[in-house]
Amino acid sequence: MAEPLFRRIALIGIGLIGSSVARIAMERGDIAAEVVANARTEATLDRVRALGIAHRTELDAARAVEGADLVMLCAPVGAYAGLAAAIAPHLAPGAILTDVGSTKQSVIRDVGPHVPPGVHFIPAHPLAGTEHSGPDAGFATLFEGRWTLLTPPAGSDPDAVERVAELWRRCGSNVQRMDAAHHDRVLAIVSHLPHLIAFTICGTADDLEEESRQEVLRFAASGFRDFTRIAASDPVMWRDVFLNNREALLEMLARFTEDAQAMARAVRWGDADYIEDRVERGRKIRRSLIELNQA
Amino acid sequence: MAEPLFRRIALIGIGLIGSSVARIAMERGDIAAEVVANARTEATLDRVRALGIAHRTELDAARAVEGADLVMLCAPVGAYAGLAAAIAPHLAPGAILTDVGSTKQSVIRDVGPHVPPGVHFIPAHPLAGTEHSGPDAGFATLFEGRWTLLTPPAGSDPDAVERVAELWRRCGSNVQRMDAAHHDRVLAIVSHLPHLIAFTICGTADDLEEESRQEVLRFAASGFRDFTRIAASDPVMWRDVFLNNREALLEMLARFTEDAQAMARAVRWGDADYIEDRVERGRKIRRSLIELNQA
Repeated sequence: MAEPLFRRIALIGIGLIGSSVARIAMERGDIAAEVVANARTEATLDRVRALGIAHRTELDAARAVEGADLVMLCAPVGAYAGLAAAIAPHLAPGAILTDVGSTKQSVIRDVGPHVPPGVHFIPAHPLAGTEHSGPDAGFATLFEGRWTLLTPPAGSDPDAVERVAELWRRCGSNVQRMDAAHHDRVLAIVSHLPHLIAFTICGTADDLEEESRQEVLRFAASGFRDFTRIAASDPVMWRDVFLNNREALLEMLARFTEDAQAMARAVRWGDADYIEDRVERGRKIRRSLIELNQA
Repeated sequence: MAEPLFRRIALIGIGLIGSSVARIAMERGDIAAEVVANARTEATLDRVRALGIAHRTELDAARAVEGADLVMLCAPVGAYAGLAAAIAPHLAPGAILTDVGSTKQSVIRDVGPHVPPGVHFIPAHPLAGTEHSGPDAGFATLFEGRWTLLTPPAGSDPDAVERVAELWRRCGSNVQRMDAAHHDRVLAIVSHLPHLIAFTICGTADDLEEESRQEVLRFAASGFRDFTRIAASDPVMWRDVFLNNREALLEMLARFTEDAQAMARAVRWGDADYIEDRVERGRKIRRSLIELNQA
């Protein structure tokens, strides 16, 4: 077995992502010699202990990070500023501070100013997840074949970047480096907007009169159902994602809305060619996905 | 084996739905003693013959319906008016004329006036499909456990309604009777709007600058992908569905757009409670689907 990448890894937040990393680290042994889990409640840490997915649990984030050479923020991004302020004085010199948040400019904005000199701050985002949450939802194969995007600020220590990249490779992930602003724009269209749309259409259906609402559920297989899987995700996480990628998300939503209105106009005025052309483009995108084995 | 429901069934159009019905009728033997397939091109009928999913093929729709006691329109709904005019003089007295179109008020509007006295017109809509099309795409289990909605006009012959219902039950489907206007409204939200949204977001992504477009494909698993499966469906069929359920679709799209704009406003102004509440409603709908075994 390879030498562990880190002596001690502290996971601040132990939900779907954090507990998956914990499981992999415990199973493989070559990621960290010691896994420390932190959560906001004893109830969550009780689950962590029952599941046996950490060597040690700590209710106090500051104590959890003490002596860790890797600290990974795995909480909703809206909690990062407070967490960073709380742990910053306790970070070990030379430690790497990373995260798994779905928005990266906000993380640099909220965490960056708290990072003490001598600590390496390497933001990251594993593109993986399910609609389930909490420490019971994690599993060791979550990241297999998926992508993790690293958005280290300019001037980051190359060795620290490489160690975070290697951690994600050992988790089964592909790794790509990306500018934080570009990350937020790409994620706005591939993930944040689809989730916003999914939540919205569920609400639209839920507002229908009682009889129609029952029939939406009964006949959901006709297309609606495909939109609901991603609508079952964690509300606090998604609230924070939307609020912390506001500009890119609103821009993509504005583009989408313009396109939807153009489609509505074509439907209203019977512009068959326009509609057929847009539907054809959907097929083309789908075919590209199949060719890339992403479908 | 039960007595065949019909002596001769004529399938006008032999794509995903028509060829699935043909396969079931050929396999079971208790739906029709003879299966006649009609298509617009000899190339399609060549495939039908190669697949062996009909007893007889006819390029002329009028000839296909002669002597049939069940005629089923399985073409895109935009072709119905022309088809109805062409076949009407050739329908056998006492025959049942039915269809599988995704819009029902338009079908009654376009086909109804052509139906000769003594022919029973029983519109139907099997809620089943895949993103594939053509006679090769059909399969005998397509309708199993799915719903078929019947929208017979007031005063329809109860025996004719029952025979169409029994046909769909023998195809493995559940059957429910529904008013045509109500059908169009329910389908607008469970199927037509989700498809319109899926086609639209694919177009929005396709309009991005080249680099981002490539990354949309690479990182599609983050949510976007779930929207693309249904975006791969047949363009002509969907163009016709949108144009023939215009009012209900535009109303549901308007409701959805209002809701999406309210969400955009909450994101812009940081209304965390509103966002969390909408996301919670998405989860609630998803849970209801899981309880109903529709997920």
